[in-house]
Amino acid sequence: MLYFVIACGVLSVLYAIWATQSVLAADQGNARMQEIAGAIREGAQAYLTRQYTTVAIVGVVVFLLAWWLLTGVAAIGFLIGAVLSAAAGFIGMHVSVRANVRTAQAASNSLAAGLDIAFKSGAITGLLVAGLALLGVSVYFWVLTAMLGHGPTDRTVIDALVALGFGASLISIFARLGGGIFTKGADVGGDLVGKVEAGIPEDDPRNPATIADNVGDNVGDCAGMAADLFETYVVTVVATMVLASIFFTGATALTLMLFPLVIGAACVITSIIGTFFVKLGSNNSIMGALYKGFWATAVLSVVALAAIVWGWLGAATSFTASNGTSFTGSTLFWCGVVGLAVTGLIIWITEYYTGVGYRPVRSISQASVTGHGTNVIQGLAVSLEATALPAVVIIAGIIVSFNLAGLFGIAIAVTTMLALAGMVVALDAFGPVTDNAGGIAEMADLPPEVRKTTDALDAVGNTTKAVTKGYAIGSAGLGALVLFAAYTEDLKFFAANAAPGSFFEGVSVDFALSNPYVVVGLLFGGLLPFLFGGLSMTAVGRAGGAIVQEVRRQFREKPGIMEGKEKPDYGRAVDLLTRAAIKEMIVPSLLPVLSPLVVFGVINAIAGKSQAFSALGAMLLGVIVTGLFVAISMTAGGGAWDNAKKSFEDGFVDADGVRHEKGSEAHKASVTGDTVGDPYKDTAGPAVNPMIKITNIMALLLLAVLAH
Amino acid sequence: MLYFVIACGVLSVLYAIWATQSVLAADQGNARMQEIAGAIREGAQAYLTRQYTTVAIVGVVVFLLAWWLLTGVAAIGFLIGAVLSAAAGFIGMHVSVRANVRTAQAASNSLAAGLDIAFKSGAITGLLVAGLALLGVSVYFWVLTAMLGHGPTDRTVIDALVALGFGASLISIFARLGGGIFTKGADVGGDLVGKVEAGIPEDDPRNPATIADNVGDNVGDCAGMAADLFETYVVTVVATMVLASIFFTGATALTLMLFPLVIGAACVITSIIGTFFVKLGSNNSIMGALYKGFWATAVLSVVALAAIVWGWLGAATSFTASNGTSFTGSTLFWCGVVGLAVTGLIIWITEYYTGVGYRPVRSISQASVTGHGTNVIQGLAVSLEATALPAVVIIAGIIVSFNLAGLFGIAIAVTTMLALAGMVVALDAFGPVTDNAGGIAEMADLPPEVRKTTDALDAVGNTTKAVTKGYAIGSAGLGALVLFAAYTEDLKFFAANAAPGSFFEGVSVDFALSNPYVVVGLLFGGLLPFLFGGLSMTAVGRAGGAIVQEVRRQFREKPGIMEGKEKPDYGRAVDLLTRAAIKEMIVPSLLPVLSPLVVFGVINAIAGKSQAFSALGAMLLGVIVTGLFVAISMTAGGGAWDNAKKSFEDGFVDADGVRHEKGSEAHKASVTGDTVGDPYKDTAGPAVNPMIKITNIMALLLLAVLAH
Repeated sequence: MLYFVIACGVLSVLYAIWATQSVLAADQGNARMQEIAGAIREGAQAYLTRQYTTVAIVGVVVFLLAWWLLTGVAAIGFLIGAVLSAAAGFIGMHVSVRANVRTAQAASNSLAAGLDIAFKSGAITGLLVAGLALLGVSVYFWVLTAMLGHGPTDRTVIDALVALGFGASLISIFARLGGGIFTKGADVGGDLVGKVEAGIPEDDPRNPATIADNVGDNVGDCAGMAADLFETYVVTVVATMVLASIFFTGATALTLMLFPLVIGAACVITSIIGTFFVKLGSNNSIMGALYKGFWATAVLSVVALAAIVWGWLGAATSFTASNGTSFTGSTLFWCGVVGLAVTGLIIWITEYYTGVGYRPVRSISQASVTGHGTNVIQGLAVSLEATALPAVVIIAGIIVSFNLAGLFGIAIAVTTMLALAGMVVALDAFGPVTDNAGGIAEMADLPPEVRKTTDALDAVGNTTKAVTKGYAIGSAGLGALVLFAAYTEDLKFFAANAAPGSFFEGVSVDFALSNPYVVVGLLFGGLLPFLFGGLSMTAVGRAGGAIVQEVRRQFREKPGIMEGKEKPDYGRAVDLLTRAAIKEMIVPSLLPVLSPLVVFGVINAIAGKSQAFSALGAMLLGVIVTGLFVAISMTAGGGAWDNAKKSFEDGFVDADGVRHEKGSEAHKASVTGDTVGDPYKDTAGPAVNPMIKITNIMALLLLAVLAH
Repeated sequence: MLYFVIACGVLSVLYAIWATQSVLAADQGNARMQEIAGAIREGAQAYLTRQYTTVAIVGVVVFLLAWWLLTGVAAIGFLIGAVLSAAAGFIGMHVSVRANVRTAQAASNSLAAGLDIAFKSGAITGLLVAGLALLGVSVYFWVLTAMLGHGPTDRTVIDALVALGFGASLISIFARLGGGIFTKGADVGGDLVGKVEAGIPEDDPRNPATIADNVGDNVGDCAGMAADLFETYVVTVVATMVLASIFFTGATALTLMLFPLVIGAACVITSIIGTFFVKLGSNNSIMGALYKGFWATAVLSVVALAAIVWGWLGAATSFTASNGTSFTGSTLFWCGVVGLAVTGLIIWITEYYTGVGYRPVRSISQASVTGHGTNVIQGLAVSLEATALPAVVIIAGIIVSFNLAGLFGIAIAVTTMLALAGMVVALDAFGPVTDNAGGIAEMADLPPEVRKTTDALDAVGNTTKAVTKGYAIGSAGLGALVLFAAYTEDLKFFAANAAPGSFFEGVSVDFALSNPYVVVGLLFGGLLPFLFGGLSMTAVGRAGGAIVQEVRRQFREKPGIMEGKEKPDYGRAVDLLTRAAIKEMIVPSLLPVLSPLVVFGVINAIAGKSQAFSALGAMLLGVIVTGLFVAISMTAGGGAWDNAKKSFEDGFVDADGVRHEKGSEAHKASVTGDTVGDPYKDTAGPAVNPMIKITNIMALLLLAVLAH
C-alpha cells in the first residue's frame, strides 16, 4: 500500500506539471500587462528568496541542534519537512505570478475562461501541497523502514517523523507571518494613502504601493497559505501515525500507520477528479462552480474511503488499542465521514458569516451607514459571534468520533478532514490570482468589463479564503486532542521505560484540572495567541505606516505622479516592505518555539519535572482553547468586513431603503472596517494555526530530546 | 470575631452616611445647572427602577425555584444577595447623580475642591459595596449558625451562602450588561451624530442624546460597576468559606471560615483611613492624590493583616487540610501579601497600557495620524498585547500562594485582593461623577476653565476605570481555581456521601485533560465569553444606531435645535434607550445562566453523569481561560483608545514633530477608535467578569439541587 501512496503523490506532481503547462500556454496579454506582471513577479521572487534565506539560517541552526540532540535521521527528517514546505510555497508563488496576467487576459474574453485559468493555478498549489506532504512522509517512512530496516514503531522512526513535522511547522510560521505582514502592510498602507488620502481607486498605477500590494497577494495569500496547509497536513498525518504506533503493535500498528497515508492518497485522486467539475454553469455562479468541484471531491472521497475500508482494511476487522478501546474498520469509516461532515459544516458556517447576502455581512453594511465607529463595532461583534457555531461543530465532531473509536477515531476524523486539503487549497489559492488579475487589468487600463469580471472572481475569493482558514483552524481544534494524546502517550512511554538515573525516572504526571500547575499551563498557553496576535497586528501597523510615509514622500517629491506624467518608484515600496516584513516576523515566530521550553524550564525549577510536564501539557491545550477562538474570530470577521465593503460597490440599500453607492460616506466607513480586517484575516488570524502546531510539536520534540 | 466583622460593616455604612451628608451639603450651583442635573437624575432613577423591576421578575422566579428545589434558607440567602447587590448599585447611583452638579460647582472654585467632592462620592459607593457585602454574608452566617443553630460547616449553611452569592451574581450580570448597553448606546450614538455628523462638541446641549449620555454614566459606570464588584466580593468570600468548610472540621473550620470575613472587615477600616489620604499635593497630580489613598490603604492593610494573623489567628498555629496540605498562620499572611502584590502589579500594568504618556497609548495616537484604519488596528494590537503581563502576574500569584498554603492559600490571596474593593471602587466611581460634572459644565455654559478642570479629572477616571476592571477580572482569574476547587470538593463530598439510589451514586469524575469530555467542556466554556461579547457588542451597536436615527429625526423635524432656538426632546432619547437596554440585556444574560444546565444535560444524555460532571467542571475553567483574556483585552484596549483620543485634545506631537490638534484628521481618526473602545471597555469587557462567576456558581447550585 505504501507504493500506492507514493504513486498518488507522484500523480499529484504530474497533475501539477500538466496544469502548469496548460496555464503557461495561455495568452499573456499585451506588453503593458506583461511589464506589470513582470514587476510583480520580480518583487515576489525577490521577497521569497530573501525570506527563505533568512529562515534558512534558523533552519541550519535547528538542523545542527537536531543532529546533536537527537539523531541524524531526525535532522534529515527536519530538513525534508522544511525543504518541502518551502518548495510548496515557492512553486505555488511561481505559478500564480504567471497565472495572474493570463487570467486578466482570459477574463477579457469571458468569465468562464478567467475562472478556468485562475482555478487551474490554484489547483496546482493545492495538489502540490497535498502531494508533496504525502510524498515527504511516505517516502521518508519507506526509507526508514524498508531501506534502513527500522521497525515502523521504533522511536527512531517516530522521532524522525515528528522532526519532519517540526521542519514543516517552522517554515510555515515564518512564511505565514512574514508573507502576512508583507501583504497587509502593502494593502493597509496603500489603501490609506491611496484610497483615503489621494482619492484614487485601488490598484491605480499612480499609487507607488500598488505593485507591492500585488506582490503581497502572491507571497502572503499564496505562498504563506501553501506552507501553512502543508504543515497542517504533515503534522496531522504524523500525529495520527504516532498515535497508531503507540496504541498498536506489530502488523496492526503498521496497517493503522499506513491508513492515514492511504486516505490521503485516495483523496489526491478524488481531488484531481474534482478539479474537472469546476465549470461555470448556465447561471454564471462562480461559487456554484467551485462548490461543484468541492462536493464532487467530498462525495467521491466518501466512496474512496469506503473502498479503502471494505477493500483493504476490512470493515469487520476488529482493532483493540493498548488503552482498551476497540473498534472495527467500519467505525473508522464513520470517523472519516465525521471529518468530512465537519469540513462541510465549517464551510457552510463560514460562508454564512462572510458571504454577501446573509445577516452578518448585511449587519456590517447597515452599521456603516451610521459611521466608521459603528462599522467597526458591528464587525467586531460578528467576528466574536462567528466563533460559536464552528466550535460547536468541532465539539460535536470530538464527541461523535471519540464515541466511535476513541482517540484514534478522532485522529482519523482529522486526517480525513485534511485529506481534502488539495481541493480546499485550490479553492483558496485561486483568490490571489484573481486579485492580481484585477490589479493588472486596472493598471494596464483594460476595459472596465474586465475589471468587473475579475472583481466578481475576487469577491468569491474572499469567502473561499475565509473558508480555508476556518478549515485549517478547525482541524487544529479537532486535532488538539490527537496532538495532546501523542504528548501524553509519549510521556507515559518514556516514564515507563526510563532507565535508572535517566531524566524520566520517577516522572508521574497529573493532568487533572484541580492541579494548579495544569491551570497555570492553560493560562500560559491561553495568553500565547493573544500576545502573538498583538505582536503581529503591531507589525502590520508599523509596516503599513512605513508605506504611508513612503508613498506620501513620493507624491511630495514627484508631483508629476498624480498627474500621470511621472512613474512612481514601485521598487522602493517593495524593497521597504521586504525588509520590514522579514525583520518583523522574527520575534513573534520565536514566541511559540521558545514558550514550551520556558514553561518547562521555569516550572521544573519551581516544582520539579513532573509538574513541569503537567504544565507543559496543559499549555498545549490552553493554546488551542484560546487560539481556536482568536483565529476564527479574526478570519471570519475580516472576511465579513471585506465583503461588507464590496456590498457598497454594487450599491447597498439600507434598512430605510436608501441606496449607498461607491464613494458615499457609508462606503468610506466600510473601507475602514476592511482595513482593520486585513491584518485580522490575513496576518494575525491565519498565523495562529501554525503557531498552535509548532507549540505542540516543540513539546513532542522536547520529550524526544530529554529521552535521548 | 463575627461581631467585629459586623461592626466593621456597620462602620462602612456610617461612613457612607457621613460622607453623603458632607457631599449633599456642598453648593449645587445655579438654576441652569440644577435643572440639567435634575434631568439626569430623573433619567437615571427611571432607568434603574425599570431595570430592577424587570430583573425582579426573574428574581422572583428564581426565588421560588430555590425554595422548591433547595431550602427556604437558601431562597432567603438568594434574596439577601440580590437585594443588597441592587441596593449597592441604587445607592451609588443616588449619590453620584447628586454629586455631579456639586462637583461641577466645586470645580469652578478649584481642582482640589472638585476632586474632594467627586472622590467622596466615589468612596461612598466603594465603602457601601464592601460594607454591604460584608454585612450580608456575616449577618446571614450569624443568623444561620448562632440563631438557627446550624453547624458552620452544615450543607444548609453552605448552600445558603452559595445561594446568596448566586443572588448577587444574577443581579450583577443584568446590571452590568443593561447599564453597559444603555451608557454605550447613548455614547456611541450621541458621538456619531453629534461630533461626527453635526460637528458639535461632546455634551453640547443641542444634542438630544446628551442627557442620555450622562444618565448612562450613572447607571452603567456607577450602578453597574457597583453591582459587579459587590458580586465579585461576595462570591470570592463565599467560595473561600466553602473551601474552609470542606478542608477543615470543628473549631478550625469555623476560624478559617471567619478569616476571610475578618480580613474584609479590617480592610474596611484601612480603606476608610485611606480615603483621608486622597489630597491634591503641591504638584497638582490627580493620579498622585488617588495613589496616595490607594497606597496608604495597601500598606495599612498589610499591617492589619499582620495584626490579625499575629494577634488572633496565631502566626505559628499549624493547620492541616483534609487533602493533606498543611500551613501556619504566617504562611497565610504571606498569601494575603501575594494578593495585595497582585493588585498593585495589575494596577501598575493597567496604568502602563492605558495611561497617556506611555508607549501603548502613544502608539495609538501615532497610528491615528495615518487614519481611522491604522488607529483601530493599533488599538486592537494593544488590546491583545495588554493581556500578557496581567496573565503572567496571575500565574505567578497562583504558583506562589499555592506553594505557600495550597488551594486555601490561593483563596486567601484572592480574598485579600478583594478586601481592597472599598478603595478600588472609590477610585473608579469617582470617574462617572467627574464625567457628568464636565457635561453639566458644558451644558450650563460655565467658563471653559471649569470644563478644563473636570476634563483633567475625567482623564484620570479613564485609567482608574480600566484599573478596576483589570482588578475585577484578575481576581476572577486567580479565583478560578478556588471556585473550581469548591466545585470538585463539593462533588467529591456528594459522591462520597451518596445514599444508595440517589443521583450521586457511582459518580466518578475524571478531570484529566486526556479525557475528551474535559476538552469538550474547555472548548464549550471557551466559546461563552466570545459569544457573549459578540451579542453584547451587537446590542450596543443596535442601541447606538437607534439613537442616531432618533437624533437625526429631531434635527430634521426641529431645525431650530441646531441654532439653539428650540429645546431638544432629551426625554425621548432616554426613554428609547431604557427600553432598548432592558430588551437587549435579557438574552446575553441568560447565556451563562443556562449554559451549565445545557452542557450537563446534553453530556449526561450522551455519556452519562460522570462525564457530564467532568465536562461541566472543565467548562468552568474554559470560561475563565478565554474570559480572562477577552475581558482584559477589551477593557485595556478601550481605555487606551479613549486616552489616545484625549491626547489630541492637548495637541499630540507625532514622530515627525508635527502637532495634531483637536479637530485635525488624526483627532477624527482617534474618535473612531474611542467609539469602538466604548462598548469594548464599558459593556462587553466588564460584563465578562460576572458572566464567569455566574457560570461557576450555577454549577455549584446545580450540585446542591441534584443532591437535594
